[in-house]
Amino acid sequence: MDTIINGRDLALKIKEDVSNSVRSLRGSGIIPRLSLIIIGKDESSLRYVELKVKEAEKVGIFALVHSFHGDITLSEVCDLINELNQDKKTDGILVQLPIPSHLDELMVVSAISPAKDVDGLSPTSLGRITMGEELYTPAAAGAVIEILNHSNITIHGKKILIGGGSRILGLPLANMLINRGGIVTVAPSANDSFVNYSKVSDIVIVDFGIPKLVKGRMVARDSVIIDSGNNYVNGKVVGDVDIDDVIQKVSMVTPVPGGLGPMLIAVLLKSVVKAAKMRSLEHS
Amino acid sequence: MDTIINGRDLALKIKEDVSNSVRSLRGSGIIPRLSLIIIGKDESSLRYVELKVKEAEKVGIFALVHSFHGDITLSEVCDLINELNQDKKTDGILVQLPIPSHLDELMVVSAISPAKDVDGLSPTSLGRITMGEELYTPAAAGAVIEILNHSNITIHGKKILIGGGSRILGLPLANMLINRGGIVTVAPSANDSFVNYSKVSDIVIVDFGIPKLVKGRMVARDSVIIDSGNNYVNGKVVGDVDIDDVIQKVSMVTPVPGGLGPMLIAVLLKSVVKAAKMRSLEHS
Repeated sequence: MDTIINGRDLALKIKEDVSNSVRSLRGSGIIPRLSLIIIGKDESSLRYVELKVKEAEKVGIFALVHSFHGDITLSEVCDLINELNQDKKTDGILVQLPIPSHLDELMVVSAISPAKDVDGLSPTSLGRITMGEELYTPAAAGAVIEILNHSNITIHGKKILIGGGSRILGLPLANMLINRGGIVTVAPSANDSFVNYSKVSDIVIVDFGIPKLVKGRMVARDSVIIDSGNNYVNGKVVGDVDIDDVIQKVSMVTPVPGGLGPMLIAVLLKSVVKAAKMRSLEHS
Repeated sequence: MDTIINGRDLALKIKEDVSNSVRSLRGSGIIPRLSLIIIGKDESSLRYVELKVKEAEKVGIFALVHSFHGDITLSEVCDLINELNQDKKTDGILVQLPIPSHLDELMVVSAISPAKDVDGLSPTSLGRITMGEELYTPAAAGAVIEILNHSNITIHGKKILIGGGSRILGLPLANMLINRGGIVTVAPSANDSFVNYSKVSDIVIVDFGIPKLVKGRMVARDSVIIDSGNNYVNGKVVGDVDIDDVIQKVSMVTPVPGGLGPMLIAVLLKSVVKAAKMRSLEHS
């Protein structure tokens, strides 16, 4: 194994599997369909939705974008989601976050049918994760599990530290790792406590949004470091880990760019295929 | 503050508050109602349901028991739950666990309307906890938070260890504590790793089900220890903490019996009143 985990290669591998599954679903008359809802004109959200559509189409998933004015009402959004919930041809529904602040995010994600919540951000999906009954997981949390599994890294009994307690990565990931037998610490803030735990952890996942925060002296020898940072510094994307500083000490580390990032859409597409397979089972 | 936290006194205080709230709800024409569903003839479940009914009635909550044969079908259970979901007079619905193994527990708890899930065990309730949007929490997790708050113990920035990763205590409690700024570790197994973390933690919650596991040498000086153990040894109830051995070293510890146990029903009744208050808001 290389020390630097190549997220692009792993994402390609996952997308190849997805592509094969789509081919066989299409053979039995099912065209996997993802509906993406975007509200407002946030530049980076628009670009990210475009990228999701492009990648979906590459693997044969039909992606439909529902684009709305920023002043849409909550009931209008929920009406559309309800229509898509009922629609027999729609497998996955994704609301691109963030949404404008006048809309209650909890109400919006709660409106998505649990069977179609491929982004894994609704309370039901998150609760199923807590229960060890995962159906869909937030892409970032799923991507970390994919990377660990692919790299044959044991979770059971390992000391694992998650820096950052977000609802889209830190918290669901913690639940997933504990349910797999990991001894998991979540440190919400990048302070001395984080460093003290980091020094003795077998696996560290960093999601603070602080460029090059994690240095070699903060990590254990032969540990595994997964970097979820995505910071822009002088026009370049930089992670939360100072990879040049940790590389000699750790057994594995994900780079930024080219680590967790490319995995996110691959994991989403895998979830869409999972939803489409459930639809195909209902029909058979 | 005493070193031994008196859960009975705190439970009485909570039930007094609940009783006052019920009085004012009844004054405005709302009689808080809890429906308890019990399936099969498990002796200890039957006794526990009886106790819940008795305590509910003491504070003025109307408690209704729906008792079923162990061979009831999933669709029959879900039909009843749906009826209670629709019933305008029912505020809270609780299914006494465990249920017979031919019934899918996930399906049963998922059938309860999130607005009436006073036991906090449905995926939606658990997911809302992950999101920091708590509505109802499992009684044990809620009871730990009540004890910490009542004892003026700061959560933010504290190193907290939870021994045991169950869906009714360890995992939801971890999410609740992280969302309150705690640095939280969950150790699923009672092994050396648990002890290593325990020695340096400010707060330790123990939920392994191993009598008198935790000794003074395993905990940090002046730490806070919460014992969720409920073990029967020679006909006596014994906790997971050897209280005689830790008492000189810690700043606070909950006893067994008389610690977390009496708090559980108090927290449940508080949730029923919360549900009834939401109903009264809908009506006004």
